[in-house]
Amino acid sequence: MRYSSGAVEALIEEFAKLPGIGRKTAQRLTMHVLQERRGEVEKLAAALIDVKEKVVRCSICQNITDLGTDPCLLCTSTGRDRSVICVVESPTEVLAFEKTGHYKGLYHVLHGVISPLDGVGPDDIKVRELLARISPDSEGGVREVVLALNPTVEGETTSLYISKLLKPLGINVTRIARGIPVGAELEFIDEATLSRAMDGRSAV
Amino acid sequence: MRYSSGAVEALIEEFAKLPGIGRKTAQRLTMHVLQERRGEVEKLAAALIDVKEKVVRCSICQNITDLGTDPCLLCTSTGRDRSVICVVESPTEVLAFEKTGHYKGLYHVLHGVISPLDGVGPDDIKVRELLARISPDSEGGVREVVLALNPTVEGETTSLYISKLLKPLGINVTRIARGIPVGAELEFIDEATLSRAMDGRSAV
Repeated sequence: MRYSSGAVEALIEEFAKLPGIGRKTAQRLTMHVLQERRGEVEKLAAALIDVKEKVVRCSICQNITDLGTDPCLLCTSTGRDRSVICVVESPTEVLAFEKTGHYKGLYHVLHGVISPLDGVGPDDIKVRELLARISPDSEGGVREVVLALNPTVEGETTSLYISKLLKPLGINVTRIARGIPVGAELEFIDEATLSRAMDGRSAV
Repeated sequence: MRYSSGAVEALIEEFAKLPGIGRKTAQRLTMHVLQERRGEVEKLAAALIDVKEKVVRCSICQNITDLGTDPCLLCTSTGRDRSVICVVESPTEVLAFEKTGHYKGLYHVLHGVISPLDGVGPDDIKVRELLARISPDSEGGVREVVLALNPTVEGETTSLYISKLLKPLGINVTRIARGIPVGAELEFIDEATLSRAMDGRSAV
């Protein structure tokens, strides 16, 4: 069954293509757009096009940045510790770490993890660009690489792969701690996490 | 905390303005747009603008229709029973009834219900346009008006208001049945619905 307007139907179809948006939600969003002021809708449409036109990847850390700001603000900042690089899977994780305000080093965004089942090999993610930042020829002075990939099979595989590449270069390769989240109750923590937390115990 | 790209931040802000979309979902949608092919994103942007440019209200039933198709396809259809008008709150409900394939009459979309608390009076919704379709001068030949508004206080108020206007005109004013939904279990039905279902009992 279709709406009485082709344009409405087309917008529902387009909304429903977005991840996590089903047909019902797409209908509700379209009804909202119908009632919204034209200027607001044009702002959304322009923002969509802008993202495709103006967002590029930083030539150093591969994080997203605006056209004309390459290298990105994090890579050119004078207030960051340039001897540490935190390796993450996507730009979202850079934001997550930046929100903490705790980490002061640089980043490297892989844009994916190694996943043979999905046909993603080491050459499909930004590993080569990471090596270029660390190689003895580069003037980086990087001493430590912190692996902060998601604790999935693919994330672990990628961590292992990168650490094997970097260790021969004399780089200190670390990974963020696995343990109990702040505020969690021990009795509800799964066995794997509890074991890792025990292994990673530290002096108080 | 902001993303390292102004364009990305702008799109997140715009997505987050949509109903039911929080900042986390807006971030996920924006990341999807970043990875999506440019052509697909342009289709979404164009569909947004199209809805504002090409969708108008049918001059008869007030349902949405495309520019150049006024009166709408439902109003001009020769296969519908022109003596019955079903009054609904929004275009979504027209679709809901059309999905059933059961109702064969015409529609009238009020685009709202009377709600004094929100400052919506009878003149703010399409009641006048409904009266124009029914008045003795019009050639409609409408015999019955079925009120199919949501069972809320505002919906009930609007139903009462319309029925008081129409009854003096000799129109048969009805409303859709309130009762137990098909497939529901009686023990979980609220008291108000059960009472209405009992009142509305019919011979088997």
